[in-house]
Amino acid sequence: MTATTNRQVLLVEKPTGKLGPEHFKMSESAIPEPKDGEALLRVRYISLDAANRAWMHGATYRAAVETNTVMAGGGIAEVISSKAPGLVAGDIVFGDTGWQNFAAVPAKQLSKMPKLEPMTHLLSVYGIAGLTAYFGLLDVGKPKAGETVVVSAAAGSVGSIVGQIAKIKGCRVVGIAGGKDKCHWLTSELGFDAAVDYKDGNLFKALKAAAPDGIDVYFDNVGGEILEACLAQMNLRGRIGCCGAISQYDGAPQATGPRGVPGLIVVKRLIMQGFIVMDYMNQRDAALAELQSWVAAGQLKVQEDVIDGLENTPAALIGLLAGENRGKRMIRV
Amino acid sequence: MTATTNRQVLLVEKPTGKLGPEHFKMSESAIPEPKDGEALLRVRYISLDAANRAWMHGATYRAAVETNTVMAGGGIAEVISSKAPGLVAGDIVFGDTGWQNFAAVPAKQLSKMPKLEPMTHLLSVYGIAGLTAYFGLLDVGKPKAGETVVVSAAAGSVGSIVGQIAKIKGCRVVGIAGGKDKCHWLTSELGFDAAVDYKDGNLFKALKAAAPDGIDVYFDNVGGEILEACLAQMNLRGRIGCCGAISQYDGAPQATGPRGVPGLIVVKRLIMQGFIVMDYMNQRDAALAELQSWVAAGQLKVQEDVIDGLENTPAALIGLLAGENRGKRMIRV
Repeated sequence: MTATTNRQVLLVEKPTGKLGPEHFKMSESAIPEPKDGEALLRVRYISLDAANRAWMHGATYRAAVETNTVMAGGGIAEVISSKAPGLVAGDIVFGDTGWQNFAAVPAKQLSKMPKLEPMTHLLSVYGIAGLTAYFGLLDVGKPKAGETVVVSAAAGSVGSIVGQIAKIKGCRVVGIAGGKDKCHWLTSELGFDAAVDYKDGNLFKALKAAAPDGIDVYFDNVGGEILEACLAQMNLRGRIGCCGAISQYDGAPQATGPRGVPGLIVVKRLIMQGFIVMDYMNQRDAALAELQSWVAAGQLKVQEDVIDGLENTPAALIGLLAGENRGKRMIRV
Repeated sequence: MTATTNRQVLLVEKPTGKLGPEHFKMSESAIPEPKDGEALLRVRYISLDAANRAWMHGATYRAAVETNTVMAGGGIAEVISSKAPGLVAGDIVFGDTGWQNFAAVPAKQLSKMPKLEPMTHLLSVYGIAGLTAYFGLLDVGKPKAGETVVVSAAAGSVGSIVGQIAKIKGCRVVGIAGGKDKCHWLTSELGFDAAVDYKDGNLFKALKAAAPDGIDVYFDNVGGEILEACLAQMNLRGRIGCCGAISQYDGAPQATGPRGVPGLIVVKRLIMQGFIVMDYMNQRDAALAELQSWVAAGQLKVQEDVIDGLENTPAALIGLLAGENRGKRMIRV
């Protein structure tokens, strides 16, 4: 490796409306020197997540991203050199590397990852996406065999795994996605029982047809109108796992919430529960073992959408927010 | 008892806007004959509840009330005669007697009540109100000593008990109520740590001042703007017990829900959970024993608002929806 400069993508302006390429610019700097307790990383894959956009609105479960700094984002990286105990050159780690080729990151902010192939699986099924699906569905949604599970953004990195785990658990699974192709893929390739194209007109009616016995578990990645439609079709004592609100991220925050809150929550004794995968990290090993066994058995298909080139990271995120991707989108740096 | 006619309050029209006296009329009919399995009841006290108004919108956890029939409502009654095993003349029961002097009701829809004095306590602290407060706070809210508990409609039948139980459990308790007098009563008589008058301007700011460490448990009786203000001030892993939505009952149903759903639920890992006291009836005896011990020890003050005369039931409900009452409002028939 002979690189001497660090290519970086800076966030130069926070969007007030839709995110566009003008909010970013490429930049170069010297490769950083790790301080005591830090490791110097070469970034291999950058994760693209709807949450990247949410961080631009302000502090969430992390501080807001700031302008004129390297855009924040999770990545899989290789340790080049280390001034931290427990990390040595050649180790593979996950952490907030930012959108750049090299990063010096405190070791305590990094998770050491197993060396497995393909490495991309560390960002998809064995990464945040897979673990979010696993814990959100099983711990929050608590589906029982025979129940109906609905998941939105069903063709995305999390949703596609949620639906497949729900099938493994013996549920009837309905995916909500944008466009005929994605919907066809969900039922023909991933084994979903039905799929609803939210771009195709009457969502409420289509959902009713796809989930004729009502909804027992709704895994919500999107919020907004889709949450509202699902709320109205929840069964008694249904569970709504609140994972994200993609529909609300790319633009100004919405001034209202879904109709039916709290009226339907009371009458139907619903539970709506928010969760963040980081809260489950002490149970990660057991979850990974189970996910690996499902992948090995062919019960869980892994879909990845890998785009080459750091310079394409902004366009890849913009496209993800528009629903371009199928499965886990990432940048090969 | 020499009555030969049954005085009744009929619902003659379902309100589209605010409930008014014109939606009811007094009527008379013969005292009913109990059929097999039924008991003939003399109604002693009729419970007034915000839920009475919600039933007019349509089916909820019960069928909608219908026009030109006796208005539905819970009541404490004495068994006059019985064609049902397990009930004899003189027994005291609770059930949906409707707004009338006499009712013939299937025994399986009645709960036999202990004979205690004052009998009014069977509708307040030892009735639906007290049990709703008990189970909603303890089972759904799960408050821990030192946490901040906020309750809305705090001067009402449920709210006034919620706040006092939360104090017994060692919490900081903030009540939200309408008007200075109610707020003063909550802090000076019931031991609430602070009270917020939602009619007095800036609710968000007043709530922030009253709950400076944020809200761990919000017991929601009202929905709407107050729920929205509380959502924004919930602490990480806070619990919102959804008991009712009084703000939404008296008028056309609202077209939107509170801002922050689901965004704040995700970021703060909140749980919003609806409940209905009927779901806890198998645990009623233990709850009543604990409520009785608190009342006996002077830790739980019981506030009742008893109005005389069946003919005053419509006005009493209309007034309750406007926030007139302090504690449990009921009609002495």
